Amino acid sequence: MADNVVSAEKLQERLVANHFNAWMGLSILSLDEESIEISMTWREEMISNPKARVTHGGILGALVDVAADFMIAAKAGAPAPTVDLRVDYHRAATPGDLRAVGRIIRVGGTFSTAEAEVFDSDGKLVASGRGLYYTGALKQ
Amino acid sequence: MADNVVSAEKLQERLVANHFNAWMGLSILSLDEESIEISMTWREEMISNPKARVTHGGILGALVDVAADFMIAAKAGAPAPTVDLRVDYHRAATPGDLRAVGRIIRVGGTFSTAEAEVFDSDGKLVASGRGLYYTGALKQ
Amino acid sequence: MADNVVSAEKLQERLVANHFNAWMGLSILSLDEESIEISMTWREEMISNPKARVTHGGILGALVDVAADFMIAAKAGAPAPTVDLRVDYHRAATPGDLRAVGRIIRVGGTFSTAEAEVFDSDGKLVASGRGLYYTGALKQ
Amino acid sequence: MADNVVSAEKLQERLVANHFNAWMGLSILSLDEESIEISMTWREEMISNPKARVTHGGILGALVDVAADFMIAAKAGAPAPTVDLRVDYHRAATPGDLRAVGRIIRVGGTFSTAEAEVFDSDGKLVASGRGLYYTGALKQ
Repeated sequence: MADNVVSAEKLQERLVANHFNAWMGLSILSLDEESIEISMTWREEMISNPKARVTHGGILGALVDVAADFMIAAKAGAPAPTVDLRVDYHRAATPGDLRAVGRIIRVGGTFSTAEAEVFDSDGKLVASGRGLYYTGALKQ
Repeated sequence: MADNVVSAEKLQERLVANHFNAWMGLSILSLDEESIEISMTWREEMISNPKARVTHGGILGALVDVAADFMIAAKAGAPAPTVDLRVDYHRAATPGDLRAVGRIIRVGGTFSTAEAEVFDSDGKLVASGRGLYYTGALKQ
Repeated sequence: MADNVVSAEKLQERLVANHFNAWMGLSILSLDEESIEISMTWREEMISNPKARVTHGGILGALVDVAADFMIAAKAGAPAPTVDLRVDYHRAATPGDLRAVGRIIRVGGTFSTAEAEVFDSDGKLVASGRGLYYTGALKQ
Repeated sequence: MADNVVSAEKLQERLVANHFNAWMGLSILSLDEESIEISMTWREEMISNPKARVTHGGILGALVDVAADFMIAAKAGAPAPTVDLRVDYHRAATPGDLRAVGRIIRVGGTFSTAEAEVFDSDGKLVASGRGLYYTGALKQ
């Protein structure tokens, strides 16, 4: 697989220039050639069912997408448009910060595939998924 | 297909009791036996790339999920936990309110499948998708 | 949406020049601007679990893919490479011929999305799904 | 994660009792606590486009499904019904035997998620994906 071409610092700037990512309180915890780790700061507005107080699936899906796309960004220079996304919900996420880990499945010329897992503060897998990213316009 | 068992009014209460749905400014525009139509009030925090000023894919994904799930809710009595979700992104969504239309694919005893389309204020399709919902626990 | 640019007869030739499609006994039943209908001739080798005698999910998935892709072909001139596919299995398919109906979700310059439903001989929905097709190389 | 509860020999019997799996010439190459490796014997009927002579996407999708489901089977005692499946196509698969590797994402009480990768005879990744399996009926 190609080497990373951007630093975690540059990716962090890009990550939170994005307003919704900033609203989610995203921060890159680590980046190596294999994976990127991003933390999310929980907030009350993320609650879905107010009785069960679980975090909204839309937030978990956004995290899967961002973590997968920023691992693409590490390899391709910038995050690429998401073409499609699959998210699997494994457990209800109770209030608390989350952590997402993104990995490459394949970087290609026109489109690339990456996956991510989302863990709660106990380290339990709450969601995972994979996305297709259009990397064709990032070339040269 | 089974008849609706809940009114749009009851579903609207349930919709915005959910904090993140309330944050997205969701409102049920119409409900019949075939489809549910939900509007979203755009807000600045939904912006993804600040230069291109496009709406974050996580927001579009959340809308697909909510519209699909609330059509399930109309048939099954309550929204059901999302087991997995696929979202296709068709066009960049520029700032502005969005509208999602949810439809049933199949209501089953244990699992149900529904789909949704998301349109921008010009009526252009910006995203679509389908989700699997666990309706097994809604039986009594 | 763009008009169809190929006849059902031309598409049928293309359909069964494909060896696996020929093995599945595929035949175009109808084609209009909105949808394509393809029949499949059941064969014993398609059985999955030999006790339950249900048709293998791989066959249903192939049918979803082919019906979606040949509706793309009707609009774009030729079937396009499948980039990814989601298949939902709604009911076990008992031995017997199947019928798939493909429809466009969106035809784009680089990528196109289409969906399909698969029905058993009683008209029951046994599977459905949607695929992403790379139509970028079909241009000019 | 739970230990395997079935041997590779028992799973192989079950694998090829399935007619379509037998037609694909599937054989379990290895099984440990983390993964299952299954080989497929290529045959001429698997060809899609007769000029490009690539293997049909339906075959690759079936392989993803079977490898994921048989890793579920190793943990749960028997293959479980596929509820839905996502397949990503990374490269055209030229004629030749294929090898699929299945791994668990999560085994749950009602449903379980597993993934698989498909490699050509040069070891190149040609397809990958993940499926949701209904393991609720396997309990006793």
